[in-house]
Amino acid sequence: MKFAIVFFPTVGGKNGELTPTQYYDDGLAIAELADRLGYFQLKLVEHYFFEYGGYSPDPTTFLAAVAARTSRLRIATGAVIPAFTHPVKMSGQLAMLDNISGGRLDVGFGRAFLPDEFDAFGIPLDQSRARFDENVEACLRLWTEDDLTWDGTFHQFGPVTMLPKPTQQPHPPVFVASTGNLDSCRTAGEQGRNLQLIASVATRETIQEALGVYRRAWAQAGHTPGTERIDLSFPCFIDEDREAAYRAGEYVERKMSEKMASAVSAWATVKSDQYPGYERLASAAVGNGAAFDERVKNNKVLAGTPDDVRGQLADIAEWYGDDITVGLSVFSGHLPRADVERGLELFAKHVAPTFADDREPR
Amino acid sequence: MKFAIVFFPTVGGKNGELTPTQYYDDGLAIAELADRLGYFQLKLVEHYFFEYGGYSPDPTTFLAAVAARTSRLRIATGAVIPAFTHPVKMSGQLAMLDNISGGRLDVGFGRAFLPDEFDAFGIPLDQSRARFDENVEACLRLWTEDDLTWDGTFHQFGPVTMLPKPTQQPHPPVFVASTGNLDSCRTAGEQGRNLQLIASVATRETIQEALGVYRRAWAQAGHTPGTERIDLSFPCFIDEDREAAYRAGEYVERKMSEKMASAVSAWATVKSDQYPGYERLASAAVGNGAAFDERVKNNKVLAGTPDDVRGQLADIAEWYGDDITVGLSVFSGHLPRADVERGLELFAKHVAPTFADDREPR
Repeated sequence: MKFAIVFFPTVGGKNGELTPTQYYDDGLAIAELADRLGYFQLKLVEHYFFEYGGYSPDPTTFLAAVAARTSRLRIATGAVIPAFTHPVKMSGQLAMLDNISGGRLDVGFGRAFLPDEFDAFGIPLDQSRARFDENVEACLRLWTEDDLTWDGTFHQFGPVTMLPKPTQQPHPPVFVASTGNLDSCRTAGEQGRNLQLIASVATRETIQEALGVYRRAWAQAGHTPGTERIDLSFPCFIDEDREAAYRAGEYVERKMSEKMASAVSAWATVKSDQYPGYERLASAAVGNGAAFDERVKNNKVLAGTPDDVRGQLADIAEWYGDDITVGLSVFSGHLPRADVERGLELFAKHVAPTFADDREPR
Repeated sequence: MKFAIVFFPTVGGKNGELTPTQYYDDGLAIAELADRLGYFQLKLVEHYFFEYGGYSPDPTTFLAAVAARTSRLRIATGAVIPAFTHPVKMSGQLAMLDNISGGRLDVGFGRAFLPDEFDAFGIPLDQSRARFDENVEACLRLWTEDDLTWDGTFHQFGPVTMLPKPTQQPHPPVFVASTGNLDSCRTAGEQGRNLQLIASVATRETIQEALGVYRRAWAQAGHTPGTERIDLSFPCFIDEDREAAYRAGEYVERKMSEKMASAVSAWATVKSDQYPGYERLASAAVGNGAAFDERVKNNKVLAGTPDDVRGQLADIAEWYGDDITVGLSVFSGHLPRADVERGLELFAKHVAPTFADDREPR
């Protein structure tokens, strides 16, 4: 397994919460530490308006600062939303980041799921999949072709030759963000795209089924088995004192849940057949109502002593495969930076070596 | 006077020219040097597709890396193009950069002028001014208001509360990029916006007239005289050996001219009453055909020994005011990084102190 760190800000600067400047300052310091400790990758989300991810309306901007302060860490969008940005702008911006980072970029593309975000950009929810498909394809072709003429449903342009081209050839690794929808996973596998599985509320069986569908589609389409990359992320709270880890975890998860509730509230009145079941999100919350202990027991959250977390990861390796990248979601902004850093050090020293995968990134 | 440095890449990676990775690497090293030497600001352009600016389709991405590597230098877009990016994305991205840089952002907004860029984004040239006006205003309001409802001609959204808010309050200094059109300069002054005057082909008299109109409009609209900020940029080639400076300057200006010619070629077949006279651009070139020596004599280009350049700046201070920011356009990508760095050192040591303006940025 490889170990990545994931940033998902759920603060808004009020009531003593981190200001944006503090969040980015702390984030850069944590990124530098992760780079020194040999973590594989740092990933950042794209969201708007709400204290649920809203400090990151443009992950590329922060990731460029991370790239300038680090030298080994891979830099990942998790995910950027093609529907909200013109493919010419998005492909150019990401190609700049790939070059600035010296070829350390992993690009996660996502469909987004917050109705307020679609509304603000004037994009109907029902065009979500069609725009995703068109814009991801347009990005890939802008990265790899000269004199490209694009005659899509939503965009027409060209012939143009996008500059700069990415430094990774033919282009940076591409990931599709998915909540485990089997069709999405199958398509991602067939197209030879890597997978960012957002599995915070899915059961073990659902995740296993999604991964099975994805891996089989990958192999059946003729892509070399074992070369697919799969990212799975988990909130992570680690401390030599188990009670302290649980207290921190419960606190952060409750905050995250509160912030998410307001971001998804629009689903109380919105329905889209491209987002089946999402109308239930408004009444659910992070953790699906399950108690924190229960979520730890089900390996939805990593929490406890280094020993405890090693045990959880042994399960995860057995359940989902030992070739996945495990993302540690450690930086919501609700814990002191020193605690986050101590956790990353503990994990790097006492947990990661047991599962270390030093093969070259595939 | 204050002294800024300006990056305008005119390389494309072919025929031994800098690759994008090399351009950004060198650029970050030059930025760090400029920061140490006490330069006031670093500015970067937005352009697409052509080897005329095309390494910078998203200046914010590179500037975030600059912010992460510097501590004093102000960070400027020169300019970003509101017509090409949704105001929600643009305001969020710039607010992130303002926070990442600890409040060092100056935002230059421009209308753009290359027909191929408008074509690619599907924006009619004739909407250029209307989209500029709407999107700049939308950005300002997204930065400063909560629960904003926007009901514009091109965008409708809200109520939304943009995150993050800029750290500079109420918002970063805003500059309007103008080629000296008197109406634009008057409007910028009336609205209390700062000015980035792109004056590469204008005569001394034209620039003076534009600055006069701008300063009078600023004062008459009730803004405190002397608090307006005016940026004027000049290609700069400085060397203890005058002949070497001229040789470098002639070489770079010729390259720049060749690259510009292909970027503006569309003007041979395009006409827009919002861009009067631009149809002549296709047959013109940087320098308007004037010889390099002539451009130096007219103070359109700074070139020669430190003594020579001091003399030119004394003229410029007398002609345009000693309260302007002089941008030194030093990084096209055509000269070795060591030469650019030596020039910045010579200028900082032997030229800048004569004109130093240590007042706080106004």
